[in-house]
Amino acid sequence: MDKDNNKEGKGLIIVFTGNGKGKTTSALGIALRACGYDMKVCMIQFIKAGVYSGELNTAKRLAPNLEIIPFGKGFVGKGKNHVSHLEHKDAAKYALTTAKKMILDNMLDILILDEINIAVHLSLIDVKEVIELIKSKPYHLNLILTGRNAHRAIIDLSDLVTEMKEIKHPYKSGISAKRGIDF
Amino acid sequence: MDKDNNKEGKGLIIVFTGNGKGKTTSALGIALRACGYDMKVCMIQFIKAGVYSGELNTAKRLAPNLEIIPFGKGFVGKGKNHVSHLEHKDAAKYALTTAKKMILDNMLDILILDEINIAVHLSLIDVKEVIELIKSKPYHLNLILTGRNAHRAIIDLSDLVTEMKEIKHPYKSGISAKRGIDF
Repeated sequence: MDKDNNKEGKGLIIVFTGNGKGKTTSALGIALRACGYDMKVCMIQFIKAGVYSGELNTAKRLAPNLEIIPFGKGFVGKGKNHVSHLEHKDAAKYALTTAKKMILDNMLDILILDEINIAVHLSLIDVKEVIELIKSKPYHLNLILTGRNAHRAIIDLSDLVTEMKEIKHPYKSGISAKRGIDF
Repeated sequence: MDKDNNKEGKGLIIVFTGNGKGKTTSALGIALRACGYDMKVCMIQFIKAGVYSGELNTAKRLAPNLEIIPFGKGFVGKGKNHVSHLEHKDAAKYALTTAKKMILDNMLDILILDEINIAVHLSLIDVKEVIELIKSKPYHLNLILTGRNAHRAIIDLSDLVTEMKEIKHPYKSGISAKRGIDF
């Protein structure tokens, strides 16, 4: 397939937000589809650490079309590893710098900024920097921003916004996160 | 990885419904994750015809972990191909029979019934048959049912339900479906 066929018109700015399951998962689903057209997709993970081997293992199988880079230090304020706010901030800043570099390099069809909405919400990065990044994107690049509590200014700039609304969640009935489903 | 490690406890019944983007897409995202653990995933498409080459192409790369079988005749009541209601009904019935067979075979970790909620909503198949199918699933099997207008009885039986709520959609601003993003 002619690579340039993938550069059809303006790339979309997509937001998956809300408190329900399906935000990062939808971004991965888009990645799966896009790989089928030989597009180049990168997911930069702002919060998650490199322990989510399901998606990382499959990304290796889908290389060079899909790359997933975990920059996070794990969920903020959770877990027993006592990562300081400053460490989380450094990690998110490094993720953002990498995203900017990728936007400058202009080699991708889809760039996924995973959990970036949470990073903004928790003041790990400034929303102004994200707005700047969105505005600087190459015309054809599709940009996907995931995470609950998406900032109003980001929603205003976006083409497609879905709120994933939790209707029922198994954690609440005592079932814990499942391999292959949740990570 | 030991295949039996994937059979951790009770498989979940998951519903992705609502009018927003991310239902089939989330199911594909789960498939991507699960393939990374060497799980076996099958997606049976109740409405879609075999023209969604993005996901079909990638499924070939992820074989034998991921199989996608399109049984549908395209979107009901849409397009110029004038498929009769009876033809749509036959297609959905055939998809359901295949799903039942797969449940009996018990070879899968995850079975995705894509757009089955729409097939029920449009009376292509009877909700009672879907309820029976859900109740007959092997203990470890994860079952994912997608499509808007999920039937109350299906939601009641499920462990995890997300409503994908449309906040903004690019079709409304005149941007049409995009390769790699929507199909």
